Amino acid sequence: MIAPNMATLLAIVLTDAAINPHEAQSMLRDVADVSFNRVSVDGHTSTNDTLLLLASGQGEPLQREALLEFKTELTEVCVDLAKQLVADGEGARHWFEIAVTGAEHTRAANVIAETVAASPLVKTAITGADPNWGRIVSAAGYADALIEPNETSLEICGVAIYRNGHPVEFDRDQVRRKMQQRPEVKLKLVVGTGPGEAIRWSSDLTTEYVRFNSEYTT
Amino acid sequence: MIAPNMATLLAIVLTDAAINPHEAQSMLRDVADVSFNRVSVDGHTSTNDTLLLLASGQGEPLQREALLEFKTELTEVCVDLAKQLVADGEGARHWFEIAVTGAEHTRAANVIAETVAASPLVKTAITGADPNWGRIVSAAGYADALIEPNETSLEICGVAIYRNGHPVEFDRDQVRRKMQQRPEVKLKLVVGTGPGEAIRWSSDLTTEYVRFNSEYTT
Repeated sequence: MIAPNMATLLAIVLTDAAINPHEAQSMLRDVADVSFNRVSVDGHTSTNDTLLLLASGQGEPLQREALLEFKTELTEVCVDLAKQLVADGEGARHWFEIAVTGAEHTRAANVIAETVAASPLVKTAITGADPNWGRIVSAAGYADALIEPNETSLEICGVAIYRNGHPVEFDRDQVRRKMQQRPEVKLKLVVGTGPGEAIRWSSDLTTEYVRFNSEYTT
Repeated sequence: MIAPNMATLLAIVLTDAAINPHEAQSMLRDVADVSFNRVSVDGHTSTNDTLLLLASGQGEPLQREALLEFKTELTEVCVDLAKQLVADGEGARHWFEIAVTGAEHTRAANVIAETVAASPLVKTAITGADPNWGRIVSAAGYADALIEPNETSLEICGVAIYRNGHPVEFDRDQVRRKMQQRPEVKLKLVVGTGPGEAIRWSSDLTTEYVRFNSEYTT
């Protein structure tokens, strides 16, 4: 799980905004979906992760546009916290973003992004700064969702390495250096021509993760 | 994937049995489901694993009972090969069997067994010889299938450590020793009172797995 020594993740966001509980809950649910629910360190869902929004109500009552603005800000805060979470994953040295587009629908895009983000072979490729299209594309292929192989393309750190079903020539050393030097590695995966899009953030898999989780009982 | 240096798994079973291709194919499909398809090293399905049955036809034609007997023998051979496969997983020091019973139906049991078998936290608990009911039961809990929490029980190496939703007292040192000394660790997980059953075999997750898959491109 994300921080098994604590047994759970506790995320608490404080605000003085005057916002009623019903609105706040509904907003937080939306925000959690595009922030904390996009995160995977090891794919092992905790039994008791918690995200709370505590509003003191000291501020001006928020309505309409101000409410939307508040939601945008809340999303930014939660996305930032979620990214810090994977960057701080057990033993993590790099984290990566997998952005899937072109899937049949949003659900399919989510399944593909989750499967790529959870694959130990993808995670160890990130660990080793290996621009390995085979591991990423095959993970998309075994995900429980349709892909269009001839419309499948992949960029790593902004460099195209696979296009329309075929690997392309690229400067491997340059991409390896980018993967090594940046704390975050961006993977852009197109899986077809549909409207489905999804994003996931995950950490690499290092020997420290294995030591941490095998040498201590949690 | 299972043996990425070879890029694929090739399993070939030879026999002199006289058996027609249609029967052989149908039989092999059934046998693969209860042998090779029960295996997970890292959950990353290969694009090109292959199981072939080659029959020379030199033997006596097989019919009825002899055919059933042949299928039983073929199953034994394939189950043995499948277990050798996980025992020989990348960096594996132990392998484990997760047997799920009491699920709503076979499909649910399969989903639960697969989820437990693929969890990095379960795999590292096996690595560390840690009789950790929390990791195993929580993996069953987040699997995409129903469990009955109050009817959930777990045995590790024949010792009850969790019964009807609660951890029970057990000799931790004794179970740790069993988990360390035996090459295979048996997990028996009851998840309810339904008829669904499933078995999976998986390997532990060691620092060698991470090194092997991060230091070499495959």
